[in-house]
Amino acid sequence: MVRIGVVGYGYWGPKVVRNINDTDGARVTAVSDLNSDARKRAQRAYPFIRTCSDYRDIVRSPDIDAVAVITPVATHFEIAKSALENGKHVFVEKPFTCTVSQAEELIESAEKRQLKIMVDHTFLFTGAVRKIKEIITQNGTLGELYYFDSTRVNLGQFQHDVNVVWDLAPHDLSIMDYLLMKNPDALIATGQAHFNHDLEDVAYITIYFPEKLIAHINVNWLSPVKVRTTLIGGDKKMLVWNDLDADQKVIIYDKGVEVTNCTKNIYDLLVSYRSGDMWVPKIDHIEALKIEAEYFVHCIKEDRVPINDGQAGLRVVKLLEAANRSLKNRGEMVYL
Amino acid sequence: MVRIGVVGYGYWGPKVVRNINDTDGARVTAVSDLNSDARKRAQRAYPFIRTCSDYRDIVRSPDIDAVAVITPVATHFEIAKSALENGKHVFVEKPFTCTVSQAEELIESAEKRQLKIMVDHTFLFTGAVRKIKEIITQNGTLGELYYFDSTRVNLGQFQHDVNVVWDLAPHDLSIMDYLLMKNPDALIATGQAHFNHDLEDVAYITIYFPEKLIAHINVNWLSPVKVRTTLIGGDKKMLVWNDLDADQKVIIYDKGVEVTNCTKNIYDLLVSYRSGDMWVPKIDHIEALKIEAEYFVHCIKEDRVPINDGQAGLRVVKLLEAANRSLKNRGEMVYL
Amino acid sequence: MVRIGVVGYGYWGPKVVRNINDTDGARVTAVSDLNSDARKRAQRAYPFIRTCSDYRDIVRSPDIDAVAVITPVATHFEIAKSALENGKHVFVEKPFTCTVSQAEELIESAEKRQLKIMVDHTFLFTGAVRKIKEIITQNGTLGELYYFDSTRVNLGQFQHDVNVVWDLAPHDLSIMDYLLMKNPDALIATGQAHFNHDLEDVAYITIYFPEKLIAHINVNWLSPVKVRTTLIGGDKKMLVWNDLDADQKVIIYDKGVEVTNCTKNIYDLLVSYRSGDMWVPKIDHIEALKIEAEYFVHCIKEDRVPINDGQAGLRVVKLLEAANRSLKNRGEMVYL
Amino acid sequence: MVRIGVVGYGYWGPKVVRNINDTDGARVTAVSDLNSDARKRAQRAYPFIRTCSDYRDIVRSPDIDAVAVITPVATHFEIAKSALENGKHVFVEKPFTCTVSQAEELIESAEKRQLKIMVDHTFLFTGAVRKIKEIITQNGTLGELYYFDSTRVNLGQFQHDVNVVWDLAPHDLSIMDYLLMKNPDALIATGQAHFNHDLEDVAYITIYFPEKLIAHINVNWLSPVKVRTTLIGGDKKMLVWNDLDADQKVIIYDKGVEVTNCTKNIYDLLVSYRSGDMWVPKIDHIEALKIEAEYFVHCIKEDRVPINDGQAGLRVVKLLEAANRSLKNRGEMVYL
Repeated sequence: MVRIGVVGYGYWGPKVVRNINDTDGARVTAVSDLNSDARKRAQRAYPFIRTCSDYRDIVRSPDIDAVAVITPVATHFEIAKSALENGKHVFVEKPFTCTVSQAEELIESAEKRQLKIMVDHTFLFTGAVRKIKEIITQNGTLGELYYFDSTRVNLGQFQHDVNVVWDLAPHDLSIMDYLLMKNPDALIATGQAHFNHDLEDVAYITIYFPEKLIAHINVNWLSPVKVRTTLIGGDKKMLVWNDLDADQKVIIYDKGVEVTNCTKNIYDLLVSYRSGDMWVPKIDHIEALKIEAEYFVHCIKEDRVPINDGQAGLRVVKLLEAANRSLKNRGEMVYL
Repeated sequence: MVRIGVVGYGYWGPKVVRNINDTDGARVTAVSDLNSDARKRAQRAYPFIRTCSDYRDIVRSPDIDAVAVITPVATHFEIAKSALENGKHVFVEKPFTCTVSQAEELIESAEKRQLKIMVDHTFLFTGAVRKIKEIITQNGTLGELYYFDSTRVNLGQFQHDVNVVWDLAPHDLSIMDYLLMKNPDALIATGQAHFNHDLEDVAYITIYFPEKLIAHINVNWLSPVKVRTTLIGGDKKMLVWNDLDADQKVIIYDKGVEVTNCTKNIYDLLVSYRSGDMWVPKIDHIEALKIEAEYFVHCIKEDRVPINDGQAGLRVVKLLEAANRSLKNRGEMVYL
Repeated sequence: MVRIGVVGYGYWGPKVVRNINDTDGARVTAVSDLNSDARKRAQRAYPFIRTCSDYRDIVRSPDIDAVAVITPVATHFEIAKSALENGKHVFVEKPFTCTVSQAEELIESAEKRQLKIMVDHTFLFTGAVRKIKEIITQNGTLGELYYFDSTRVNLGQFQHDVNVVWDLAPHDLSIMDYLLMKNPDALIATGQAHFNHDLEDVAYITIYFPEKLIAHINVNWLSPVKVRTTLIGGDKKMLVWNDLDADQKVIIYDKGVEVTNCTKNIYDLLVSYRSGDMWVPKIDHIEALKIEAEYFVHCIKEDRVPINDGQAGLRVVKLLEAANRSLKNRGEMVYL
Repeated sequence: MVRIGVVGYGYWGPKVVRNINDTDGARVTAVSDLNSDARKRAQRAYPFIRTCSDYRDIVRSPDIDAVAVITPVATHFEIAKSALENGKHVFVEKPFTCTVSQAEELIESAEKRQLKIMVDHTFLFTGAVRKIKEIITQNGTLGELYYFDSTRVNLGQFQHDVNVVWDLAPHDLSIMDYLLMKNPDALIATGQAHFNHDLEDVAYITIYFPEKLIAHINVNWLSPVKVRTTLIGGDKKMLVWNDLDADQKVIIYDKGVEVTNCTKNIYDLLVSYRSGDMWVPKIDHIEALKIEAEYFVHCIKEDRVPINDGQAGLRVVKLLEAANRSLKNRGEMVYL
């Protein structure tokens, strides 16, 4: 039985508690939150769980094997560090940490103690992303990839501590990292803060990879419509993932470009277009967090390295840090 | 009667000829094209029109008042210059010219001779753009503008002489110029060429304006789906223009953000969201080029300055030139 | 405090219990279900609620004011009758009863004892139907109505005791009854049973009203796509309600037909079409059953006649009974 | 060379002329129309074609091999009869004739003279219907068919001579006849005329086939939205054809129902649902009328029986006549 303490019982915490409790071989034994209403809600929903206001009561508790850190990002480092130092595995809400050096320190601390870090990149556990991963890697269906272009826009929710990049882009960046499996060379981020002079509410990130692969992320808190769409173009096939479409989340297009060198002039290219059937694979509708909770317990018990380990969290924080630096310097190229 | 000679009878030329001929007070008297098949097609469709292979027979003809230049962009300058020097008004396919200096020279030449230049920014004459212009300027419906975000992606058509920015973005840039009526400060363009090392097929442009207004343009020749969508956010209302939607091209959302300073901490902002009805105005379905042809004739007869005059063409070429410079320098900021 | 006993804790029962318990001035005091697992689920979720297997323990209990009957339709009459005879108000799952005479008997019983009957026509309490009702009646926006055309199709869920008409059409019929406020003259129902020779899985109902108003309902358990769309045409405006569209549930079209008598021939009509803007009113997203539960308690306390009283339930059962008779006689017209 | 005379040059006639002229081995030699403006339009577009006002000049002309009858349905019989009696093949706009007996007389006349009749059921030549036919018959992909459910609604165009059934349903009926290849047993049509007491503008037709196959057609001139959707359910797979969707006209759903007899009670059925991938086949975008014109010429030259011969036209007219009889008798079942 993996006994888990959960720090933070705001919006996401209750979902984490519920899904851990639904996992065989795991249960939540304690919940901490600074807010007394949150503690009352937890107590009412789970009468047998211990609640406390100070996270240290969790991380130091001898009857706890792992700690889930579901608090604002500014507190992740301190809580996770303390948990690791007390010999607990950690599950940390995204984004992993505020800085690259914090992430590196946590990774080192965990390695030294042979503890697991798992960063809550929930989207990796959705039916859609799992299916796309299968299409890209197992089957090589798309061929060599040309671009990854993601749009994640909606009205609000404005955050007071982080800009739209730190709020929304961790989703796109963690998905991109998982699907492409490539190290980016550099990025450029542009954007604008309309209300709070420090916190951009509209932003665009271009990420350069080796070998002509390019990624782009469009995040916006000021859009009247909600859009969650990712286009992935490859030399064999292309894919559109519309996460808001209930019936056709992922469509694979048998479309592409064929290029041959022109015989007359070696600098000219003959480009022709291929357009065939579309295919809409069935996507599982299981709650991603449930799969993720089970996977966390599995990785602890079987001593496996999670796909969303500290390194994955670090790679995303590196990109976020670079994006912020580029934004502050009005679109300066930041090498990675 | 305004007598018009048309240079270039490829894809767009026949549409220009048909629409000019449908205009009261104007007719096409001659068509030139280097390709003999094109000339035969013109002759068959319009038995009374003179055809020739050399554009100089058009620009020098005494029975011609205006010349429509519907040729590849590399030839615009030479032909338009020659036409102006022969005392003809000119109608020039977009983009106006290859360089800013060419555009400036043509404008000067026309001013000296009191001739009209009209650049074929066809989209300005669509029902959708005319309605959006009315919404933004006449009614002030959207309020102060926050951003303009346009996506124009599809599979092909690859051009051999220009990249995706010069091919597709003139539409977005001319529409942006017309709707926003503001001079941009700077731009950054990123992108990638996957086939021809000089010609980007995927590109992203961020354009900075004064007073926190920001624009973004996403153009892509490698998309499996066709998208033609522009979001415009304002402090009063927001608008989505989906040019591919037959019934709901333009939707105005009574949505927005209200920001008040927090009484406790003057650095904190209280942000609240407003979400009301949507409104889908009726859009006229008249062919844009027909309206534009009539407007060209009207501007010549009534001696009016067209909204899409040489200056408008120049502003777009300036942005295209800057975008290319930024692209070649991997996203360097270019001041305008 | 209105104390409510709930009979039936299968799929819908738990939602009824939760919403009643969330209502000020009401609480569920007892739940009965024949199935011991259901009782255990109820007990776990609500430790303070009494559970029992026999509904008679509910209807006879002195500390219960009203009984919610959330059981298969075949049992509604017996349970509701017994509840009324024991002086309880009743809330009955749709459809009200199996037959018109049962419905009439329950209404009579309730009237004699001055008790309330409320039939669970949940859709009447959705934001969409409330908005459409407001549009039709308060504002007269649509004008004189021409037709009501509703499609409710999906794959499954096959019922073993009722056909697709009794399963799905109560929604459409109760909405139609509420919105049109007219007594139909006659109906014709056609359909087919593909698996169970008695239970149609595809059916079409045409309902004739006085004054040229016509309604049509298309229900189908064998559709690969889920459709929930109602068109309502009036002489001033027209309306489409797509219940599956998150953003545009209800669209009002300023479209119509104008008919004038031809001056030459009085038998000829000149028909012209009018096509203007569309308007998408904001729809409240509150859970319908919550509103309905509050309304039930309100009607009991304030002694009001619910819009979904026994008479409304009876009108729907009359139509269902007629539809079944028509179906069994292969589309015979049944007068109402 | 098949020389064709075209009677009627209104809306559809010019398209027929253009497509015949684009067909190898055929040309239009004469056009007749009562309206002098129509004749002028024809003359201007095709200077070498003979025009005349009286169709008899066409049907009697010795230099004409076949006559295309593109006139109002009331005149089809007289013109086609006269053409056949003069030894011409005929191509007749849909619906074939006003009555079953007229259709039978024309078929007999053509057979006696070994002439071809082809009824302009254009939809049979669209890429979508050809693909669906291939899916249903060649591959047996859908399995045994359960139902065919078609909706064809829009605002207008009101006809003055025929009701909405005769105007719109010939499309659905000819497609249904072609795809299902089964003889219906009976039909029921309901509907309402809102303006002209004789001409229904809203109508619903249920068609019973042997072996539990059922079809339904919903036609409406008073709908604010245009819908062109057909659902076809089979025991192996199901199909949705949305003719207004540019990219996904035909979707095949690997969805279905599996029914097994319950072991406990032989009258109970266990129904389970199967839901797999979707597949969107590529549809050819060639103009249907072009394919049809080529096919007409091919059938004449090669002496083949067209799929849309007089018998196909007759089968549709039989259904239309039955639908009208049912409508006039308020939904009476009409046996076929």
